[in-house]
Amino acid sequence: MTTRIERRQSPRGDDGKWRTALTCIEPNKILVRGYPLDEIMGRLTFGETIYLLLMGEVPSPGISSLMEAMLISFIDHGATPPSTLAARNTATTGAPLRACVAAGVLGFGRYHGGDIESCMHFLDEGLERVHRGETYHEAATALVQKYTDAKEPLPGFGHRFHTRDPRAARLFQMALELEMEGPHIQMIRAVEFVVAQLAAHPPVNIDGAIAAVCGDIGLPPEAADALFIISRVPGITAQAQEEHKRETPMRQIDPKDYLYDGPAQRRVPEKRR
Amino acid sequence: MTTRIERRQSPRGDDGKWRTALTCIEPNKILVRGYPLDEIMGRLTFGETIYLLLMGEVPSPGISSLMEAMLISFIDHGATPPSTLAARNTATTGAPLRACVAAGVLGFGRYHGGDIESCMHFLDEGLERVHRGETYHEAATALVQKYTDAKEPLPGFGHRFHTRDPRAARLFQMALELEMEGPHIQMIRAVEFVVAQLAAHPPVNIDGAIAAVCGDIGLPPEAADALFIISRVPGITAQAQEEHKRETPMRQIDPKDYLYDGPAQRRVPEKRR
Amino acid sequence: MTTRIERRQSPRGDDGKWRTALTCIEPNKILVRGYPLDEIMGRLTFGETIYLLLMGEVPSPGISSLMEAMLISFIDHGATPPSTLAARNTATTGAPLRACVAAGVLGFGRYHGGDIESCMHFLDEGLERVHRGETYHEAATALVQKYTDAKEPLPGFGHRFHTRDPRAARLFQMALELEMEGPHIQMIRAVEFVVAQLAAHPPVNIDGAIAAVCGDIGLPPEAADALFIISRVPGITAQAQEEHKRETPMRQIDPKDYLYDGPAQRRVPEKRR
Amino acid sequence: MTTRIERRQSPRGDDGKWRTALTCIEPNKILVRGYPLDEIMGRLTFGETIYLLLMGEVPSPGISSLMEAMLISFIDHGATPPSTLAARNTATTGAPLRACVAAGVLGFGRYHGGDIESCMHFLDEGLERVHRGETYHEAATALVQKYTDAKEPLPGFGHRFHTRDPRAARLFQMALELEMEGPHIQMIRAVEFVVAQLAAHPPVNIDGAIAAVCGDIGLPPEAADALFIISRVPGITAQAQEEHKRETPMRQIDPKDYLYDGPAQRRVPEKRR
Repeated sequence: MTTRIERRQSPRGDDGKWRTALTCIEPNKILVRGYPLDEIMGRLTFGETIYLLLMGEVPSPGISSLMEAMLISFIDHGATPPSTLAARNTATTGAPLRACVAAGVLGFGRYHGGDIESCMHFLDEGLERVHRGETYHEAATALVQKYTDAKEPLPGFGHRFHTRDPRAARLFQMALELEMEGPHIQMIRAVEFVVAQLAAHPPVNIDGAIAAVCGDIGLPPEAADALFIISRVPGITAQAQEEHKRETPMRQIDPKDYLYDGPAQRRVPEKRR
Repeated sequence: MTTRIERRQSPRGDDGKWRTALTCIEPNKILVRGYPLDEIMGRLTFGETIYLLLMGEVPSPGISSLMEAMLISFIDHGATPPSTLAARNTATTGAPLRACVAAGVLGFGRYHGGDIESCMHFLDEGLERVHRGETYHEAATALVQKYTDAKEPLPGFGHRFHTRDPRAARLFQMALELEMEGPHIQMIRAVEFVVAQLAAHPPVNIDGAIAAVCGDIGLPPEAADALFIISRVPGITAQAQEEHKRETPMRQIDPKDYLYDGPAQRRVPEKRR
Repeated sequence: MTTRIERRQSPRGDDGKWRTALTCIEPNKILVRGYPLDEIMGRLTFGETIYLLLMGEVPSPGISSLMEAMLISFIDHGATPPSTLAARNTATTGAPLRACVAAGVLGFGRYHGGDIESCMHFLDEGLERVHRGETYHEAATALVQKYTDAKEPLPGFGHRFHTRDPRAARLFQMALELEMEGPHIQMIRAVEFVVAQLAAHPPVNIDGAIAAVCGDIGLPPEAADALFIISRVPGITAQAQEEHKRETPMRQIDPKDYLYDGPAQRRVPEKRR
Repeated sequence: MTTRIERRQSPRGDDGKWRTALTCIEPNKILVRGYPLDEIMGRLTFGETIYLLLMGEVPSPGISSLMEAMLISFIDHGATPPSTLAARNTATTGAPLRACVAAGVLGFGRYHGGDIESCMHFLDEGLERVHRGETYHEAATALVQKYTDAKEPLPGFGHRFHTRDPRAARLFQMALELEMEGPHIQMIRAVEFVVAQLAAHPPVNIDGAIAAVCGDIGLPPEAADALFIISRVPGITAQAQEEHKRETPMRQIDPKDYLYDGPAQRRVPEKRR
């Protein structure tokens, strides 16, 4: 009989040492996936280096643009997502920034950010039907019917605030312009078309758009999971610091009782490079 | 007598609502510091958007390059910093990725990453001497003497592994090429010159280089604190995922007993934009 | 079609308010499950109050004794469980105590402490067989066969260090003396008997013993989950404080390279009440 | 010149091993501070074992009673302290229990629970005056004057909700009945007397009462810090589980918009042992 004990021995080489393939540290030398970190500085962007760290290679220009856009799309969603409120409630107790960020990251639970992975599986299920000979429209119709019958929400569709998610629209537009559209985007478009016919017609959300783009550029579900955490940390950090700076300690934070008092809408400067 | 109670009332407008100036959320609209998030996507990089979120404005091209380089410089430092080991020890218990990342972030304690802020104050102390009429060399000599007498380590100098920190060297080189050098870099260079005469001559480390660059481009200490957390999260994430994928659960992680088995050293592709 | 939006409305009374049944706070009054907290102080123990908070009622004397013993049984397991190492690696960075404790708690992952719940389901599966007419021995034999065939470890059996877990033995002895043995303990005893005949004969571990006792005293799996977290926090706390007090910052913690230098084995003083 | 590097070498024996004095783990044997864990089970309570783990010895009956009472006094304070809201906001995202507990523990910041330590120093300052020849009343008058002049809140006095903290009153009563009153309690009583003459007359709060009791029974400030974390974890755990069980995911938690619907006030059963 196999017991719990067996699982605890790590696979190792003859030398009995464990292995890491991410970053090599030697005196005066730091290699990330083989590239000297000081050479990466100035040659790649932070977003490209994140891709390199997660996937092992420098991204192509098209993937690089989509990667930056996906990281940006999740960077913040205002003061009231539960993960942000966890960070702000931690900040109001006088806890240091890193404790607030950790509390925020812990709020990336099953119902918050977890939709990307389920949408990737959802799209793959549709694409299997296509591979078996169905058209995209037939596959989409069957998928939507299945979820409607089970009274389950469609992964990647619907949003608390937005009836048309501007981030999803932009990501699809970029994939089109960069000629990076593939079968996953085609699949989610087909589902969107079917959904639009229904009485309730929830829009594609940013989780759905990211799931489709990740599928088409070859990011596996676990990399998408990492992407969500990495991308939201700056927002959590900025929110916790604003709480520290603008509010008095130990306040009761009511998520409905606030106003935005930042700059009015303005245009992003043209790309300068 | 003022009691603890008074501190608990937040300053608010006449409407009794609390305020946030970071991100405006309305149906179908997300403004980060006034810029529509969907317009930012494709126009700015993730690194530039982090700067925007923390500082309120889009960075100039020079600041943008230094910001990306600083974010990259901290992205990972191998499998054995204590914060990374906290993340890996959490991963080996089967905890989900976000729990591992949170445990790692909690390990950015006083002795790990905290040197940037103390080095910023250290450089400011030197610059005050310069403003009072001392030369940079005189100010640096006085500072070094003060720390030597107090048997205190010099903030921003010395490293466990590196006798010459390649990241610090690269950051200074970039600041020079971008013509972004200012008094803080001049100050740390003067200290470096004085230190080089001593028996023990610890090198400028990456914390010191970042402190000097942050000082010269106007990032306050709390933004530098945020920078460190944000920049290391991708590394923590990748390390936790590698632990999940390559190692068996509940193993005992010995930080001295490992080997790097990733790609051999290779050249970063030329910048393609 | 039901979308993700529907799930976001909480069930509430006509007044639109949300509800809590745990603790009532009014000026100068704190009721835990209806009992004034100041009356509980001096009348109940901390362990009994934990039971009250989780289960809603003051425990009977027998349940109270088993509750204290279960809480004690998990209180610490030395310096090297991964959760403890996560706390110590956080402590060595100079992080405050609460950050170290949080990092430790995050290491109560699927493979660490998670066995109680799976063992509760395992015992229930056996008891269902008994209810359908099998003897305990027949049910145990069938269960063991099923796990052996699937090459799965038996939940609640086997331990990294111990071939006979002294905590499990003591808990069973207490349940016997207190006349609190019920069908779950009978079931795990029957499995133990069958397992003892096998070549590998992993012992009942503390997770198994707690699962059986929880089953017999009516603690549901989620309360057992809470029990594990609550009971180990003192150990995590003490370990992090010892790291802060006895070791220098930023050390590399090798889990195999340590010695115990506390008091030699001694006898617990006789119960004084 | 001493650099950061020197601090990184741990003090060790000739064998190069690091040391722990808390818990000895050998095959089939677990000693906590020298006592076999299985002997502790059934002989001590959980509260007494916490004291043993933190302080190294089994508490006397009087200390044991005060220890249990202090642990109970902090066990929960309803649904709306910021640390509890951090745990509930994490729970509403679908995060597992241990993530919610970690987020809650991170909210034990400077302004929440941190008052015990500052009150211990405050009382010690008063006792130094007594040792120099002042009466308790003179020392208390001087201390109150100093804080009033500085417009600083008095550590251990004042509460958001309570004008008379029932937990503090009960703890002082227990110390009296157990004949455990010492100079720290005498000092805080003297301060209370002086404060009562003032226009605003904030009451002694539970932090103040615990600080005084800890001072008199010899618990150092760091043990008091541990005490607060350990005692509130059951409350955080129960609150997170109630959120999981009673509320729908991803809700917006308004800390002012709730009702208590648990049992009405009832009497604690008489002590049965």
